[in-house]
Amino acid sequence: MSLLVVGSVAFDAIETPFGKVDRTLGGAASYFALAASQFTPVRVVGIVGNDFTAKDEAVFRGRRIDLAGIEHVPGKTFFWAGRYSQNMNERTTLVTELNVFANFRPTLPADYCDSSFIFLGNIDPTLQSSVLHQVNGKPKVVGLDTMNYWIERTPAELRETLKHTHILMINDDETRQLTGEQNLMRAARHIFKLGPRTLVIKRGEHGALMVHDKFMFSVPGYPLEEVHDPTGAGDSFAGGFMGALASAGRINHQTLRRAMVYGSVLGSFAVERFGVERLAHLTRREIQARARRFSQLTSFQL
Amino acid sequence: MSLLVVGSVAFDAIETPFGKVDRTLGGAASYFALAASQFTPVRVVGIVGNDFTAKDEAVFRGRRIDLAGIEHVPGKTFFWAGRYSQNMNERTTLVTELNVFANFRPTLPADYCDSSFIFLGNIDPTLQSSVLHQVNGKPKVVGLDTMNYWIERTPAELRETLKHTHILMINDDETRQLTGEQNLMRAARHIFKLGPRTLVIKRGEHGALMVHDKFMFSVPGYPLEEVHDPTGAGDSFAGGFMGALASAGRINHQTLRRAMVYGSVLGSFAVERFGVERLAHLTRREIQARARRFSQLTSFQL
Repeated sequence: MSLLVVGSVAFDAIETPFGKVDRTLGGAASYFALAASQFTPVRVVGIVGNDFTAKDEAVFRGRRIDLAGIEHVPGKTFFWAGRYSQNMNERTTLVTELNVFANFRPTLPADYCDSSFIFLGNIDPTLQSSVLHQVNGKPKVVGLDTMNYWIERTPAELRETLKHTHILMINDDETRQLTGEQNLMRAARHIFKLGPRTLVIKRGEHGALMVHDKFMFSVPGYPLEEVHDPTGAGDSFAGGFMGALASAGRINHQTLRRAMVYGSVLGSFAVERFGVERLAHLTRREIQARARRFSQLTSFQL
Repeated sequence: MSLLVVGSVAFDAIETPFGKVDRTLGGAASYFALAASQFTPVRVVGIVGNDFTAKDEAVFRGRRIDLAGIEHVPGKTFFWAGRYSQNMNERTTLVTELNVFANFRPTLPADYCDSSFIFLGNIDPTLQSSVLHQVNGKPKVVGLDTMNYWIERTPAELRETLKHTHILMINDDETRQLTGEQNLMRAARHIFKLGPRTLVIKRGEHGALMVHDKFMFSVPGYPLEEVHDPTGAGDSFAGGFMGALASAGRINHQTLRRAMVYGSVLGSFAVERFGVERLAHLTRREIQARARRFSQLTSFQL
């Protein structure tokens, strides 16, 4: 089924113990789209400057990624520069230049308005809401990502958007900050009162935990020998998750569990190379093989 | 099958956001024995002072715990005092009084010497080795715990003991420190060269990861609403793990996976109350119910 994502498309400069790149395609929507398009067609809503060329866009071509919703305007594309610590567990943001992203007002092409699966990437909650307002009728699933900045600065707007959200996808710290609850189970119950009936807590190398009001599901991080660049892991997780769910077309315990696994699979591939490089060369066969490895990694009999 | 544990028996003073106790039974061997005895008979090798009374010992009675290997000597029992941070993720040691433990020289009662499953708790590697020397023949499984102190101070002795160890059970940081490898998969391969063919990495609330030279298995931490006291979680994990394994009597992929789950089950119960209180009142029925919950927590179909 049709999956729409709104979020950043950016250029990143990244430094990790494994290397350095000065300008590589990044942004949540880029990682999300590449991951999700392995499962279902994806419609992207975003904004770029006139430094974003056909060459930069090439990685999206030949995939089920609709770029009609990416607005091209004069100016520079969102730029982010960051450096990871030796153990990759800490990240320092060196530069954030919003550029054209500062004036982003998402506008859906007419044929996007029937989207039934929607992912609201980590942007201003007011803009997230504006996307929902442009969609015809009630979407089947709305997933949402957010961060400390919006939790602190726009709590009322975020609460309003959460009322229309089915699946909230954030990390441990954000879960605690949003709810004021230290314990994640109590935090989840708090979140259920805000709107979402499913909370997906992303935990980086420790995997992800889903708390649904009727069940829980945990998936580990895939143990990798080489992590070259953690950038985009969470967005690739979200893409794999929402892509698998939209591809299933219906929400139940089984499709949600499977979405968690494919989210982890895509997140685990994303970090193996710099930027979107690994996602750009990923095959469906590799995805299936790793999904089976997740099965071997977690199966037991009592 | 017969399971022997050597380790500390102690009195603990513990402070967490949920309360405070001034003197409660503690020590790795205590948690281990209470957890493991749910699955198999346990023989305990340790040392206590004359402040350790029949009343203190009462919690072990009526269980399959053999205390003949606990030496009673004049003096005070090992005492530890610690305080946990608000989020329970950090622990400050306030007092460590080794007392009679400083002169501990483990001596096995004659009828312990046929033990086929052995767990060497976190003590001086030379003492760990001395226990193995007292055992007749080759034990079926030797599990070992250690810590930064021994990794730094007695590396040669630890290496010697590791040669005779099948299963090394330590945390992330200890794994990295022991091997000098940041990446846990590469660290595991390093450890395989030292002796153990199975590495169990304990990750607290994030569960545990087993890396065997032929397969990997991951078990999540059980999502709990109330964690009152994390003390002894790792030792209870080790007890559940080794107890389940000794009870199965043989080592294969399936029994090792199941041991991981029962380790996590026992660790998750241990933290629900202060000290050994929860383990002291735990039933086999509760254990089975939570093991099934681990199954629900991790099951999926591709």
